[in-house]
Amino acid sequence: MKSIEFWFDFGSNYSYLSVMRVVRNGIDVVWRPFLLGPIFQSFGWNNSPFVLQKEKGEYTWRDMARQCAKYGIPWRMPTEFPRLGVLPLRIMLVAEGQPWAGEFARRVMLRNFHLDQEIQSKDAMTSILVDLGLPAAEIIAAATSDATKARLREQTETAKTRKIFGAPTFFARGEMFWGNDRLDDALLFASEPKNVTRIARVDQ
Amino acid sequence: MKSIEFWFDFGSNYSYLSVMRVVRNGIDVVWRPFLLGPIFQSFGWNNSPFVLQKEKGEYTWRDMARQCAKYGIPWRMPTEFPRLGVLPLRIMLVAEGQPWAGEFARRVMLRNFHLDQEIQSKDAMTSILVDLGLPAAEIIAAATSDATKARLREQTETAKTRKIFGAPTFFARGEMFWGNDRLDDALLFASEPKNVTRIARVDQ
Repeated sequence: MKSIEFWFDFGSNYSYLSVMRVVRNGIDVVWRPFLLGPIFQSFGWNNSPFVLQKEKGEYTWRDMARQCAKYGIPWRMPTEFPRLGVLPLRIMLVAEGQPWAGEFARRVMLRNFHLDQEIQSKDAMTSILVDLGLPAAEIIAAATSDATKARLREQTETAKTRKIFGAPTFFARGEMFWGNDRLDDALLFASEPKNVTRIARVDQ
Repeated sequence: MKSIEFWFDFGSNYSYLSVMRVVRNGIDVVWRPFLLGPIFQSFGWNNSPFVLQKEKGEYTWRDMARQCAKYGIPWRMPTEFPRLGVLPLRIMLVAEGQPWAGEFARRVMLRNFHLDQEIQSKDAMTSILVDLGLPAAEIIAAATSDATKARLREQTETAKTRKIFGAPTFFARGEMFWGNDRLDDALLFASEPKNVTRIARVDQ
């Protein structure tokens, strides 16, 4: 099965676009939840660049509105940004390899960027899981276990090791692609062997 | 005539992609040369983010190679980055409204990102202008006049006023678009009145 690794944080607005767009027939999505905050902190930033850089931030919200209109994705400017979403990231680790992972991710993202609601409480996550017909209490217990907490920290360390500096980030056949603007390139590269030639040529 | 404003610096690698791609039948390109350095300095940065952020920088060069391969644009990793190109930016002010502006911009960009050569000397600029059959000495005299020097400083101040935070930046019908990844959106918006509706809807 062809596959794409998708590294994301639920607080990241450009990850939202990719979560809503990533599904493709014949390409398996390997979900890689991680915490973007510690990555930014390692660069000496105590917040998102969209908060720290006023001009870039203002532009970003205009861009988000336009991009959502372009792709037909719902959008409401979040009143809190970036939203902390540690619990749903941990739930994504429990969801690994499960058929409900993608739909859970979409529901959490829609809560954040369409409904403008918090994505951190057990109540909110229970509501989403129950809607999906899943054993919410059991999943949340697994997500809040020490083992899962440790796994999320490890995954964030792995993100650093793999030189991830933002989200969303994709890997297809070992090539890294950064940003929703590269999702199509990454999917094409994952799906069409002939593109290997094009990228390989780049190394000469 | 439909038009697009194109704000760029010759040292900017993503501006290179857009300079090579911007030509479209029926859309006038209004060239807006400016100095990106003072904009970055106003954010407290003493260099390009691709130099200051190691991981992002490494990725950027891989991305550039792939993007150039995708668009069929020649590429050689510059041994000096970012290259200072104040003289060609001043020449672009002299070129304002002239039919040779676009071709001059492409030649300068190709010197930087394909030939890996400096873009700051009078010799280099003379060579390009002579190749284009232009009165090089006269143009360089105009470009290095106090009036033109002042105009480049003013244009850079205008960039700040218009909240430009990077290059390339485009304006089409008053909408700002940032980055080579938004060039197609900007051109579409400049060319098709029906898109006004789509963007206007965003304001509701």
